[in-house]
Amino acid sequence: MSTFKARVLYDFQGEPNTAEMSITAGELLTVTRTDVGDGWWEGLNPKGESGLFPEAYVEKVETSSKPPNIPPPAPPSQPGWGFPGQQEPDQGGHDDDDWDEWDDDNTYESPPYSNNMPKAEGNTQRLTKEVSGTALRKPHIYRDSDDQLGRWEVLSNPYTVQIASPKKATKMGGLKSFIAYTLTPSFSNVEVSRRYKHFDWLHDRLNEKFNLIAIPPLPDKQVSGRYEEMFIEHRRAQLQEFINYMCRHPVLSTCDVWIHFLTCTDAKQWKQGKRNAERDQLIGASFCLCVEAPEKEIMPSLVEVKIDENLKYVEKMDQCIKNLMQTAQDQQKKCINMYKREFTRVGEAFFALGSAFEYNQQGMYSKASVDVKNIGSTYIMIGKLYEEQGKMDWLPLFDQLYIYKGITSNLPNVLQMQKMAEQKKKECERNNQLPQVALTDVRRRSDVITYTVFAELNHFQQERDQNLKRALKDFLQEQLNFYKNVVTKIEETLNQFE
Amino acid sequence: MSTFKARVLYDFQGEPNTAEMSITAGELLTVTRTDVGDGWWEGLNPKGESGLFPEAYVEKVETSSKPPNIPPPAPPSQPGWGFPGQQEPDQGGHDDDDWDEWDDDNTYESPPYSNNMPKAEGNTQRLTKEVSGTALRKPHIYRDSDDQLGRWEVLSNPYTVQIASPKKATKMGGLKSFIAYTLTPSFSNVEVSRRYKHFDWLHDRLNEKFNLIAIPPLPDKQVSGRYEEMFIEHRRAQLQEFINYMCRHPVLSTCDVWIHFLTCTDAKQWKQGKRNAERDQLIGASFCLCVEAPEKEIMPSLVEVKIDENLKYVEKMDQCIKNLMQTAQDQQKKCINMYKREFTRVGEAFFALGSAFEYNQQGMYSKASVDVKNIGSTYIMIGKLYEEQGKMDWLPLFDQLYIYKGITSNLPNVLQMQKMAEQKKKECERNNQLPQVALTDVRRRSDVITYTVFAELNHFQQERDQNLKRALKDFLQEQLNFYKNVVTKIEETLNQFE
Repeated sequence: MSTFKARVLYDFQGEPNTAEMSITAGELLTVTRTDVGDGWWEGLNPKGESGLFPEAYVEKVETSSKPPNIPPPAPPSQPGWGFPGQQEPDQGGHDDDDWDEWDDDNTYESPPYSNNMPKAEGNTQRLTKEVSGTALRKPHIYRDSDDQLGRWEVLSNPYTVQIASPKKATKMGGLKSFIAYTLTPSFSNVEVSRRYKHFDWLHDRLNEKFNLIAIPPLPDKQVSGRYEEMFIEHRRAQLQEFINYMCRHPVLSTCDVWIHFLTCTDAKQWKQGKRNAERDQLIGASFCLCVEAPEKEIMPSLVEVKIDENLKYVEKMDQCIKNLMQTAQDQQKKCINMYKREFTRVGEAFFALGSAFEYNQQGMYSKASVDVKNIGSTYIMIGKLYEEQGKMDWLPLFDQLYIYKGITSNLPNVLQMQKMAEQKKKECERNNQLPQVALTDVRRRSDVITYTVFAELNHFQQERDQNLKRALKDFLQEQLNFYKNVVTKIEETLNQFE
Repeated sequence: MSTFKARVLYDFQGEPNTAEMSITAGELLTVTRTDVGDGWWEGLNPKGESGLFPEAYVEKVETSSKPPNIPPPAPPSQPGWGFPGQQEPDQGGHDDDDWDEWDDDNTYESPPYSNNMPKAEGNTQRLTKEVSGTALRKPHIYRDSDDQLGRWEVLSNPYTVQIASPKKATKMGGLKSFIAYTLTPSFSNVEVSRRYKHFDWLHDRLNEKFNLIAIPPLPDKQVSGRYEEMFIEHRRAQLQEFINYMCRHPVLSTCDVWIHFLTCTDAKQWKQGKRNAERDQLIGASFCLCVEAPEKEIMPSLVEVKIDENLKYVEKMDQCIKNLMQTAQDQQKKCINMYKREFTRVGEAFFALGSAFEYNQQGMYSKASVDVKNIGSTYIMIGKLYEEQGKMDWLPLFDQLYIYKGITSNLPNVLQMQKMAEQKKKECERNNQLPQVALTDVRRRSDVITYTVFAELNHFQQERDQNLKRALKDFLQEQLNFYKNVVTKIEETLNQFE
């Protein structure tokens, strides 16, 4: 069901340690459920906190009329922000569900069931309760200073999802095989099994739904070597980075289709959730309908400069990230090829000389030979360390940069959306043909878009300063470990020298 | 004057802490001076120790007649083993002294004088006394087991010679310039000034004189960049390696021309010593005349196999040393070019990203930017470390290997000399035309050559097991220092991370 706004008429003090929530007269709530029963509604307060409150204490706020160029709000039966378990029951008709045919290899089918959970009705229902408070919320933007314009309300209960080393599964009596990854969200601790094509479907939905939020990229499709162990493990690591970004994002981490993707273990409900997601009408520009942004009007002059500054900044970040990605990829290859080759060559030259040292006039055991051969072995070993090292530092760095490159190449589109909305607003103001109430609505819509874009920019900056920076630090730590290892190897060889 | 052998007739106990030496009846001494006066002679005992003893206690051993194919021994007025100061005085006639015209650039002249010593007659005489006991000896081979056949008697007073950072000197009113290196032998502590062309002249003399001893190579002549600081400093280091090998060699370190080269500070005596060296007739095969080898006859069957084994071994060493030299040269170049470029590229990619981090919505100082730029600076700095590093490890290794490559490419010729002498002996035995005494002499000559060759092979093995091995160890130590430095740089950067 869709949500709506309600103004609090009277203060209400919720009972502590229950599902009840305290509300204050004048607050604007987002009502998420009206079918709780016994006169209770469920909703979110402006801080994004979720809870129950008496229906009688609030007054539904009528939606203002829409500007002409915005589609109407989704009908109540359409999915918007909510839960798979809350969707209307499956109305039969499995014929339109081509899920199993949507495949990156166009032939294999996949089990949308949990790996180790019994297939049982009601699983999703049960999970719904467990996720409550995490997922059940609308995107909310707050403003803590004029300078930053807006920030996404962060998750009160952040969660993580682990993607496990995948198993190669087979179906149709072993004739067809596919890679199934196991995802375990921390809020449910229930494993779900997903294939790359499911991620791909999810990604399409996210891109369709959010044009004001930069969606992290999926790893590239790859045809050859798809079943090779190294490729599969690397794809797992890449998907983990995608998942991590999703989990950290206040809006993406709580949206329906994502929660459905993370939690559904029942085939029938899976199909229903899938159909709902594909029919979602709160997509694109309509997404703004469900964003709770500050009421304060935005000064357009302030914003325009900032948007242009950010466009330049995001472009520069994009270039620098691409450049470092290229460097990381380059260095990773050089670890395997060039550096390994150089150290092996050096090692072999020493080792050969050590072998020549074996000859001894007295036919005696030559310690010198052992020492010199040890130098050789050490450098050959360092070569092998280089070969392994790329997987420890450059490749993980590349994978993290890959996510951010996806974001930075997406953000300019997001910024352009704001510019377009602003232009539309100016046109309406110039034309002066709209009634005042409709013009107010257009202005509000433009402000919500601006708030959303800045919330997204602030989120990116936070990602940059926290997670991208940590990725760089992790890289440096791995490099330190590597060179310490090299030092140890050389030191050991020196200590063995007589 | 030339030296001769004397057999000890009676035991004599030398006074401790004087120039006197104890001798034992039956010992074979090498008499080096008979003009000490008061009935004393100076000489070397079989251990190579030098000292005075009573003339009356010894009996001169008559030299055996020479085989037909060996030139007669040098006349008493010719230099053989002894001292520049002991040479006959200059007989005038400076006209034949083309020393100053022998030049690696064919035009410049050089001062064969000490840099900071007054040009004074008698300098060489004074030095003679100081070097006494080190240089004043004949090559002596002892045999401590049947297996090794012979070893050079080691120096009782080993010495070193330091070659200092050269100065660019000028002559002819500054029109002509040349590089003069300053050599300071530890036994005299008197500086002498030598140019590359003097080394070159010395090297020609050594090669002429010794065909049974592998002469260490001089650094290659180089036409371009001769006056560039880096080239000059590197040539100094290379000459130091040449000098070090000379000083370590029991025969080379004590031969006339070398001592003359190391000590002469007087122009007149320099020319005389030079002329004497050029007139030396104890060269090539005649060198054996002054080698004291064990009297014991050698079983030819035992030697042949050993010589062939050693030929193979020396060839293998030669290949391996050349290969490691190539590797060292390669790596040294790669330090300056490839490794520096790679680390600089990595550093620049991080630094650029760090610069992009500078943008901040709040216009605030971004610590993240500083951290990421620090990574960049660190890698750029490591690139610079690489650039400098080649001079610390690969280049010194190359220079040491260069000396040994010279030895290993020379040793096969030395081994061939033994084979030729052995063949000559066999011919004489087959022809059966020589009188018995002459045949004995031919056999003895062949044995002395064999003893000399094995003394040289043993010296090389000792060089390999001690000095070459130490060079490799020094290299490894420098590599350790380098990687420790890299670890420290990365560690510091990590510690600055927030």
